Amino acid sequence: MAYNIVPLTELISQFERLPGIGKKTAQRLALSILEQPPERAEKFAEALVNARKKIHFCKCCQALTDLEICPICSDETRDRGVICVVAEPKDVMAFERTREFGGTYHVLHGVISPLDGVGPDRLRIKELMTRLASGEVKEIIMATNPTVEGEATASYLSRLIKPMGIKVTRLAYGIPVGGDLEYADEFTLARALEGRNEI
Amino acid sequence: MAYNIVPLTELISQFERLPGIGKKTAQRLALSILEQPPERAEKFAEALVNARKKIHFCKCCQALTDLEICPICSDETRDRGVICVVAEPKDVMAFERTREFGGTYHVLHGVISPLDGVGPDRLRIKELMTRLASGEVKEIIMATNPTVEGEATASYLSRLIKPMGIKVTRLAYGIPVGGDLEYADEFTLARALEGRNEI
Repeated sequence: MAYNIVPLTELISQFERLPGIGKKTAQRLALSILEQPPERAEKFAEALVNARKKIHFCKCCQALTDLEICPICSDETRDRGVICVVAEPKDVMAFERTREFGGTYHVLHGVISPLDGVGPDRLRIKELMTRLASGEVKEIIMATNPTVEGEATASYLSRLIKPMGIKVTRLAYGIPVGGDLEYADEFTLARALEGRNEI
Repeated sequence: MAYNIVPLTELISQFERLPGIGKKTAQRLALSILEQPPERAEKFAEALVNARKKIHFCKCCQALTDLEICPICSDETRDRGVICVVAEPKDVMAFERTREFGGTYHVLHGVISPLDGVGPDRLRIKELMTRLASGEVKEIIMATNPTVEGEATASYLSRLIKPMGIKVTRLAYGIPVGGDLEYADEFTLARALEGRNEI
């Protein structure tokens, strides 16, 4: 009879399915659960089910929320005239951590990527267009990643939105704060030169 | 109103409490749960609670099991005359993966470590002594880690057991299979020389 503890094997395989978690890490995580009091495992289980059940996309900006309309969209103090368009819900969190942006967001839930079979129709572009129809919006900030797909998505949307008379901007390219010129690639450096500002 | 999705924050903090999981990884893992169908989160939650509830220590060898006596201890074909003493339940799994050991195990659940306030009384030594009292055991293999604490524990137990007329052995030290002599530290190399075998 082989030494196989079914409930443990099952827990390990659940951890293994998480992104970036290999066999050994999964085993370590599963064993750490066994070392904790049972209440910890129950709280963890509750948090898992709760998060999955309660969180959905904001009806307006498509970001994650447990409300019908997310706190950002329903915040009267935020500028509805500016929409920052991002690819993923986690990008909203990244911008919110800066505490620098007072506008609203729109999450596309992906980027155009013909190689992966993701066309514009698979993104939440229709929902963005509905928001623009109100006429309230003055500027769209394209904040997709500086990758081929991110650029393609930004320029696709810009071609779509510019004719509506709305200003479309793109995040600045340049050297990262605290970065080292020596390690910056030539494209980044060239863009940093191009986008130089007077001091 | 800040952008704080309570169920998500709770799930992230649960992941963060796992060993070796930082803030960013915890966020990535939590978001990956939201991307999966709800059944996945439910199965994961079930596995967590199940594993914690059903798994306990084998009454005999103190290894992890969901039965009263683990499959290794209750396996008639295994040699009860040889006990491999390990520090942690995961060590049993490591040995079982080799498929080379036909004896039984005993898990101490720690090693003697005065700096951390762990004395012999905190380990499952009493349970080991009870097993030795049967007179069936011929050999004890000390398979604790080759660290200061592991060595101290091995020699403490050896002093305790040897007077009972039981053979006490220690895992071989040497160069790891597939290792490179160039990178072996001097202590390991010295031990590998010392423990050399005729070919």
